Amino acid sequence: MTWWCELAWLGGDAPTAGVTAGVVLEVADGRITSVRAGVAAPPAGATRLDGLTVPGLANAHSHAFHRALRGRTQAGTGSFWTWRDQMYGVAQRLDPDTYFRLARATYAEMALAGITVVGEFHYVHHQPDGTPYADPNAMGGALLAAAAEAGIRITLLDTCYLHGGLDADGHQPLGDHQRRFGDGSADAWATRADARRAGDDAVLGAAVHSVRAVDPASMALVGEWAAGHGAPLHIHLSEQPAENQACVAHHGRTPTELLHDAGLLGERLTAVHATHLTDADLGLLASTRSGVCLCPTTERDLADGIGPAGALAAAGVPLCLGSDSHAVIDPFEEARAVELDERLATLVRGTHPVAALLTAATANGYSALGWDGGGVLAAGAPADLTTVGLDSVRLAGTDIDSALASVVFAASAADVTHVVVGGNVVVSDGAHTSIDVAAELDASIRTVTGGAAT
Amino acid sequence: MTWWCELAWLGGDAPTAGVTAGVVLEVADGRITSVRAGVAAPPAGATRLDGLTVPGLANAHSHAFHRALRGRTQAGTGSFWTWRDQMYGVAQRLDPDTYFRLARATYAEMALAGITVVGEFHYVHHQPDGTPYADPNAMGGALLAAAAEAGIRITLLDTCYLHGGLDADGHQPLGDHQRRFGDGSADAWATRADARRAGDDAVLGAAVHSVRAVDPASMALVGEWAAGHGAPLHIHLSEQPAENQACVAHHGRTPTELLHDAGLLGERLTAVHATHLTDADLGLLASTRSGVCLCPTTERDLADGIGPAGALAAAGVPLCLGSDSHAVIDPFEEARAVELDERLATLVRGTHPVAALLTAATANGYSALGWDGGGVLAAGAPADLTTVGLDSVRLAGTDIDSALASVVFAASAADVTHVVVGGNVVVSDGAHTSIDVAAELDASIRTVTGGAAT
Repeated sequence: MTWWCELAWLGGDAPTAGVTAGVVLEVADGRITSVRAGVAAPPAGATRLDGLTVPGLANAHSHAFHRALRGRTQAGTGSFWTWRDQMYGVAQRLDPDTYFRLARATYAEMALAGITVVGEFHYVHHQPDGTPYADPNAMGGALLAAAAEAGIRITLLDTCYLHGGLDADGHQPLGDHQRRFGDGSADAWATRADARRAGDDAVLGAAVHSVRAVDPASMALVGEWAAGHGAPLHIHLSEQPAENQACVAHHGRTPTELLHDAGLLGERLTAVHATHLTDADLGLLASTRSGVCLCPTTERDLADGIGPAGALAAAGVPLCLGSDSHAVIDPFEEARAVELDERLATLVRGTHPVAALLTAATANGYSALGWDGGGVLAAGAPADLTTVGLDSVRLAGTDIDSALASVVFAASAADVTHVVVGGNVVVSDGAHTSIDVAAELDASIRTVTGGAAT
Repeated sequence: MTWWCELAWLGGDAPTAGVTAGVVLEVADGRITSVRAGVAAPPAGATRLDGLTVPGLANAHSHAFHRALRGRTQAGTGSFWTWRDQMYGVAQRLDPDTYFRLARATYAEMALAGITVVGEFHYVHHQPDGTPYADPNAMGGALLAAAAEAGIRITLLDTCYLHGGLDADGHQPLGDHQRRFGDGSADAWATRADARRAGDDAVLGAAVHSVRAVDPASMALVGEWAAGHGAPLHIHLSEQPAENQACVAHHGRTPTELLHDAGLLGERLTAVHATHLTDADLGLLASTRSGVCLCPTTERDLADGIGPAGALAAAGVPLCLGSDSHAVIDPFEEARAVELDERLATLVRGTHPVAALLTAATANGYSALGWDGGGVLAAGAPADLTTVGLDSVRLAGTDIDSALASVVFAASAADVTHVVVGGNVVVSDGAHTSIDVAAELDASIRTVTGGAAT
């Protein structure tokens, strides 16, 4: 297979911000085998990709079922915590079949937005009363199958979730709406996690829900499991001040310090959000080479606040991106929001270079999800490509010098025209090649919300 | 003319957030003559509008030529002030013909985004050396013609711009790149402003550039002109802390206090940005019933900071919205950003009800631009409508209860399907009815930037 790109982002320090004209990508067995630049016209047999082609985009933090909440929680008042109650309501109505259909449609929406790999932070494991399904990994299996049918890679971050919350007196038992999330113990979680099976387009990873939902001894066991399996490990960290306050009140240390003591920090770990950090927390994340996943459109929606993205980047912490609650699914909005929210907080422009924002959306996300060497257009990398048309009204007027910044700062998910995953065409001319995505979203969301037809 | 709307936002307190099914709008002579709800199917001869129809959207603050800067200033470092130097570079290359073509394409992009009226804050009046054109209103005339051909209403906020800046020692003379903005005196500005002519689809308004560019005595004259002509009056206010510091250092009072002393505050006035206000400033704006225009995507881009939108709204100050520098043109992103940036600043959700956000984008903008009674779907109002399709992947799954919040919090400009201005169809099936917008943007931007073809 051969693709010819009018423009492609190959990285580097060219005056065109790493954008190169006339790039031929040869692909075999799902990997890029050669990259040639400066080829004026498509070679015979090549597929022509007009616009700017970038590496496939990584969505490093997803809760697929939250897609059903879009437009249904935004209008109200309240806090992260009242939103969480609404979210639990939808979680109660999922079963392996309905979740498969909702996730397949949601992952297909991601494909249309240029996303080629998703990190699914999965904790809706059991039946609503907490009883395992006949196959205790039925729900996780539904997510793996959904991604395969949607045509994107998945890292299933199977999440350990043991307690209902944390206050100064310690951890609380699971509430009624949390019962299906829990395995009872980290050992039981590990037994179930070990029973998972997946194909080539999936990585089996691990997650600790948060310091609220997992005690230090249990999180240490999950960390050991991840290390023993060479698996990526993710955790929700300091999204809200209340988590920090409870952690300090009970444990006498911040969530980041607690993770450090439990041995979780390190290159394997991706801390999601990391919004409310002390300087010492930031130093621990940096010195241990831990990563951070920012979810800017969710952090806006849930009133989390603006995290220290600039300070993290300056300290060398690799940043990646996630659409998390899917209030929108638009990786360009996520990428630019890192810089634009930093500008709002600091009144300074240009903390995050545009190439750094796109690296967060590509190579750093692949790495955080256990797909090392992915998210770049280079020989040997997985053949995952996303092409953004430059002929919409949003991007018209762009030239080679401004193409990268135009795409990062002004493109919409609607501008994605072509997506390739492992050499397979998943999106062509802006349409999914096998799924009627809007119709499947509509049907699957109505099933889990009981919404009336308009 | 008759339109049948699957869903329409008629306002009010229904459980569906004011959204009503099966709405028939009758239109004659450019105005809505009747509104009937609960009509199950389109009457004979009616045009069917699937999705959610809302009043036409008002873009209350525009500098049309900034569209050429999209993707060309975002990647760098620096501040508002270094960005301003880049912006002056493009301003130097405009003439009445090139500006007409750039503005026509930019206003057509606005139409595609659902915008039916634009407030053009216009100060590129003269030749680059400051000499008037043979017709001293050639540039303003080009903008009026551009809006007419693009099919949208315009309020030409002809801007008085006399000085190059303000520091503790007072106002500085115009710099080389500002010379074409200046009329020399407020009297000369008024003479030129009085010579403008416009048709029915335009309002001739006034603007004071800022306390940096206009001294108090001159701004008082502009304010008197606006009052005498019953014209809307706009001003850039406290976008950056440096403006406040210089104003206090020289005048001994804040910009808002200075406006108050000059007699500018009042229902006629719209203060644009109002990002850095004291409590006393906020009280003055509220007590005088002045309005405020927020430009959230520009305020993000230019690192202005997050203004006190919630406090302004709580004090009864009417808020409207503008895309200003056109970093993006997406009225839905502007509207939701008011609430989402508030959430980032306060960690509280739901300060701005969804209906208030859409009112800012519609009726409040019409009012701020001198089109009283516009921006609503009601008998007697101008027949300006914008329809958002609910069948894209972004909005699939929406029902009547969630339609309004889905559109405000998740729609993209790309979801606009149909736009009517004064009873004329400007956008149909997502395409402009008379202009190839992307091609015209591309050609006109290359002319003023000298950009190479990709």
